[in-house]
Amino acid sequence: MDLIDFRPTRDQFAYTFGGAAPIMRIKPGTAMRLWTEDAFNYALQSVDDLASEKVNLAEVNPQTGPFYVEGAEPGDTLVIHIVDLTPARTWGASAAIPFFGGLTSTDVTSTLQDPLPDTTWIYHVDSATNTVGFEPRFGSGPSVSLPIEPMLGTVGVAPASREVRTSLVPSRFGGNMDTPEMRAGTTVYLGVNVEGALWSLGDGHYRQGEGEACGTAVEGAMNVTVIVDLIKGGGPGWPRLESDSHYMAVGSARPLEDAWRSGQVELVRWFEQLYGLHHMDAYQLLSQMVQAPLANVVDVNYSVVLKAGKHHLPTAAAYDGVHARMRELAASLGTFSYDF
Amino acid sequence: MDLIDFRPTRDQFAYTFGGAAPIMRIKPGTAMRLWTEDAFNYALQSVDDLASEKVNLAEVNPQTGPFYVEGAEPGDTLVIHIVDLTPARTWGASAAIPFFGGLTSTDVTSTLQDPLPDTTWIYHVDSATNTVGFEPRFGSGPSVSLPIEPMLGTVGVAPASREVRTSLVPSRFGGNMDTPEMRAGTTVYLGVNVEGALWSLGDGHYRQGEGEACGTAVEGAMNVTVIVDLIKGGGPGWPRLESDSHYMAVGSARPLEDAWRSGQVELVRWFEQLYGLHHMDAYQLLSQMVQAPLANVVDVNYSVVLKAGKHHLPTAAAYDGVHARMRELAASLGTFSYDF
Amino acid sequence: MDLIDFRPTRDQFAYTFGGAAPIMRIKPGTAMRLWTEDAFNYALQSVDDLASEKVNLAEVNPQTGPFYVEGAEPGDTLVIHIVDLTPARTWGASAAIPFFGGLTSTDVTSTLQDPLPDTTWIYHVDSATNTVGFEPRFGSGPSVSLPIEPMLGTVGVAPASREVRTSLVPSRFGGNMDTPEMRAGTTVYLGVNVEGALWSLGDGHYRQGEGEACGTAVEGAMNVTVIVDLIKGGGPGWPRLESDSHYMAVGSARPLEDAWRSGQVELVRWFEQLYGLHHMDAYQLLSQMVQAPLANVVDVNYSVVLKAGKHHLPTAAAYDGVHARMRELAASLGTFSYDF
Amino acid sequence: MDLIDFRPTRDQFAYTFGGAAPIMRIKPGTAMRLWTEDAFNYALQSVDDLASEKVNLAEVNPQTGPFYVEGAEPGDTLVIHIVDLTPARTWGASAAIPFFGGLTSTDVTSTLQDPLPDTTWIYHVDSATNTVGFEPRFGSGPSVSLPIEPMLGTVGVAPASREVRTSLVPSRFGGNMDTPEMRAGTTVYLGVNVEGALWSLGDGHYRQGEGEACGTAVEGAMNVTVIVDLIKGGGPGWPRLESDSHYMAVGSARPLEDAWRSGQVELVRWFEQLYGLHHMDAYQLLSQMVQAPLANVVDVNYSVVLKAGKHHLPTAAAYDGVHARMRELAASLGTFSYDF
Repeated sequence: MDLIDFRPTRDQFAYTFGGAAPIMRIKPGTAMRLWTEDAFNYALQSVDDLASEKVNLAEVNPQTGPFYVEGAEPGDTLVIHIVDLTPARTWGASAAIPFFGGLTSTDVTSTLQDPLPDTTWIYHVDSATNTVGFEPRFGSGPSVSLPIEPMLGTVGVAPASREVRTSLVPSRFGGNMDTPEMRAGTTVYLGVNVEGALWSLGDGHYRQGEGEACGTAVEGAMNVTVIVDLIKGGGPGWPRLESDSHYMAVGSARPLEDAWRSGQVELVRWFEQLYGLHHMDAYQLLSQMVQAPLANVVDVNYSVVLKAGKHHLPTAAAYDGVHARMRELAASLGTFSYDF
Repeated sequence: MDLIDFRPTRDQFAYTFGGAAPIMRIKPGTAMRLWTEDAFNYALQSVDDLASEKVNLAEVNPQTGPFYVEGAEPGDTLVIHIVDLTPARTWGASAAIPFFGGLTSTDVTSTLQDPLPDTTWIYHVDSATNTVGFEPRFGSGPSVSLPIEPMLGTVGVAPASREVRTSLVPSRFGGNMDTPEMRAGTTVYLGVNVEGALWSLGDGHYRQGEGEACGTAVEGAMNVTVIVDLIKGGGPGWPRLESDSHYMAVGSARPLEDAWRSGQVELVRWFEQLYGLHHMDAYQLLSQMVQAPLANVVDVNYSVVLKAGKHHLPTAAAYDGVHARMRELAASLGTFSYDF
Repeated sequence: MDLIDFRPTRDQFAYTFGGAAPIMRIKPGTAMRLWTEDAFNYALQSVDDLASEKVNLAEVNPQTGPFYVEGAEPGDTLVIHIVDLTPARTWGASAAIPFFGGLTSTDVTSTLQDPLPDTTWIYHVDSATNTVGFEPRFGSGPSVSLPIEPMLGTVGVAPASREVRTSLVPSRFGGNMDTPEMRAGTTVYLGVNVEGALWSLGDGHYRQGEGEACGTAVEGAMNVTVIVDLIKGGGPGWPRLESDSHYMAVGSARPLEDAWRSGQVELVRWFEQLYGLHHMDAYQLLSQMVQAPLANVVDVNYSVVLKAGKHHLPTAAAYDGVHARMRELAASLGTFSYDF
Repeated sequence: MDLIDFRPTRDQFAYTFGGAAPIMRIKPGTAMRLWTEDAFNYALQSVDDLASEKVNLAEVNPQTGPFYVEGAEPGDTLVIHIVDLTPARTWGASAAIPFFGGLTSTDVTSTLQDPLPDTTWIYHVDSATNTVGFEPRFGSGPSVSLPIEPMLGTVGVAPASREVRTSLVPSRFGGNMDTPEMRAGTTVYLGVNVEGALWSLGDGHYRQGEGEACGTAVEGAMNVTVIVDLIKGGGPGWPRLESDSHYMAVGSARPLEDAWRSGQVELVRWFEQLYGLHHMDAYQLLSQMVQAPLANVVDVNYSVVLKAGKHHLPTAAAYDGVHARMRELAASLGTFSYDF
């Protein structure tokens, strides 16, 4: 298995899905050790750095990539298995950006009210306890240590229909789904829309609550190890995820119920394929067993994850068992240090 | 502690929150062993019973209650601690009711398409394994055994503003929230809107996936043990739930993002009270730690649960520690059999 | 034709659809001259009266009624023809009520932002020009005279399913639809849900923009003349309106697209009945000719009006031509003065 | 004034806003006579042409353009005055495309239901009466002649943030707003996002109902005359339109209430500029006078038009009176025939 190390320079980031020239061509079956910058593009380094002053909204969610996968054609299935996610800094940042987030009016949920106060929080990594620390910025209240649970906010391919979307958008092509399920051990299946797939990733979170209420997670640079593969044909309508324990689909749309509908139908379709069930039976079975955590209610589209636990289900081999093979390959990579 | 057993006769059910005369007056601090009929009002007993023919939509979600709590006044907090939920039949039913559910057009998400086929599934209880069994109704596919995880779809009080709502509605008064969090061990806090609170419960589910995609869970009659208490004042804006492990709030509205917004703001307000945090800090802290499972995307309003894990947090005593006291009282009840 | 004059005393108002005892029994085919209080219940009489201090939210949108129509049974069609609407005061009031309206966060579109400033505007009636006058309350800007175009915000019957809703709610039963189409010359068709129909009306507006952006119109007491009739059977799914020039349906729901879907499907159904068209042809024809003004985006449900111009269409006689007969009866009433 | 005639060849169409190379450079103050292909790209020519078989969804809504306007820079205001719209064929087409439109489930409002029947309607132009003719496709019902009221479904510029969107999308950059207000006599103001603005237009409709319920209008090739100008700075947040009688803003988003909020706030901002009103007073004044017709409830984003009638208002000169100058220039062009 090829193993490629790549840390982009600052001028190599992409800020879109689609529209950016590939930074590298890779073969299916390649392992990659990548570095990703934080979503603020390193603009918020202390609580005195305010988003309205420091963050360049045209250059947020910097993407590492896009990578051109040889042989990938529209209709194929791109497979990205997340082997490892390790914070690449000793701190992460979060912010309440004016008119951005879930409990404020925004650029489309427009009101005439004043914005919430522009505020930055810095979370320091405690390696001993593997936690990040919350510190109140407004008066009193406790400090709180929260476990580090690294995840990627964005994993995506170039969109269909000639489109180019900013890296803030989640949609059928993946993108900024902002789900904690995008963690080490997860395999992502994305429908390929253009030759080479042109996938990228970024937006590492040291942790994030479901919904990402304030609009930003504990954002931090990340060391990322993935294995990339390609399945000819079979491209799903919406991103599918597989872990050792769950089959998942992610729908992204507005209003939020349409995100749910899209993801839930996608999981029904997957269950028809996995188990030979009629769609009415898949609908019924999933109605009684699915978990439905919100991913985000703050991005350009909202995202919902639909999860079905494998432990309740007969054994099946999605995509001919590629997830299990990926897990074995990942184990074969052994432990290693990032030495960018 | 008083202990009241009550199994309603068929003509004693209520079908609304508000508007029904109280079936009984109780004192705060009373334990109750209740029986609840299934959501279909016992109309679907085999796969040949079709919802369109058998279910009387004016008499679904029959409520056990309403109960008048002595001393309860508008602005107070009604406390209902769920001690035990035990299936009262050896089978449960689920159905795809025409134009009802999440993956179909409905009476308000109206289209000109034909309905999905009216279908009933029966789930038999296997006491040995504590599971219910899914059987496909359309052609092939596996049978699947799913763990019994009893919960109540509806717990609510009479609404504010003189309103009367059907027992299909979730809202600020609780009602048909359809969340799996409404299980044994959970304490529910509801704002009292009318004298006596006039609370009721029903709609037992032997299990349910989050979102309740097809519109109905594994619906079944239930033996229910609760302890009811009253806190003067402090009525929350939206239902709050507490378990040994989590603080929770439930928002119910349409579109789904408004359900989320309402529940998320309610949890922010609770955290201000619990920890003396400024709302901006509570917003930030919860953004990084909350879980946000969907409850339902199929009822008159949609419902979202916002959950914050206590294990991350400093110790606090919500409502002066009533949940812990309820847990002790529940333990003191010992095991007992329902002998309706 | 019977002619009944009725001006309620302050203790005779109803604040709900359903749940209130009928104030009077009438026969089908009765003309009524009624008086309605303004939506603020006369609480805002000058710009110094602030909604947060003066308005009792439990007693807004006072209804004149409910009236019991003899012979009306569930499934019937109640016909209310608006003969005349005349302002009953020399001024109207409007207000930006904190957390109420379209360009602010609200009780369900919840955010953590501060409210907009609580503000009252008084519009004086100029009888000579038949206008009301807008005066800026914040600094500079022009005064603007706007034509008086009287309408009723609420016309409704008791809801189905044993429900009682506040007079702030628009739904299938009509209610607080807040559309300027509810003007003199319009005939309203409402499905009867309970014996006697129990209809009421109120919430007179001296004028209102579509959408009712700030949440309140130019609210004022109104002299109202209507003729009430009953058609056995044929109750529509959503309120239908007919004027000399248009067939209309009003859908009310959230999100706003569901209000549109509901109203648009209702108009398709009406066109199937009026012209014998297949629903696909009615869908197509209406797609090319319908007008779709918003009614309100601020109430408990949002409302959209779907209008089809009669001048494009072959002659038809909806409900056996009752609108034309109502227009003749209205003319026969002649001019008259209200002498409450 | 320069006058440019341009009819694109079939390989010159663009299918996106942004991302396409400019077809021509023009100076501000240029009049253009253009030809636009219909939204189906000429694929539906008879009722036997079905969308599922003939329409290439990657090549719908073909755009004439994009045109590079010399001197246009981000932040500027592009002015497009529509002088004349004349049908370029003797028939138009409309279709119910499977899973596309307002009264069907769609790719994001996903259900498990079957699609509505794939159907094409052809509307023949009657030049004598200036009407198009509706003919039922399913059984009985009347033929109906509807006035030709030509409009453009799409007018837009390249988006901000490096994005490329298909010509099916309406948003801040304009695009597929599908409003009947985009007719001869209207001036459109669009915020410039990229150098040269890169505007295009297309999607001519011989007529359309508000909401565009079935997803398609009476689609037809169009002869289009516009005058294009540039104002340095002042780019609006959302498209603004001006006619002799109205100031308008168009918001586009999902859910539909967010489209309304966005457009309504934009009109408030415009009124602050036009009349020096405080935003609270502009909010109040517009609440009593605005018209709010739906534009579309079927595209990638939904669109709402907010209209304020000039006849109620003091005289103002938006953008230094450019609309009035455009009207004079348009008149100076005289009548002319398209001779492509």
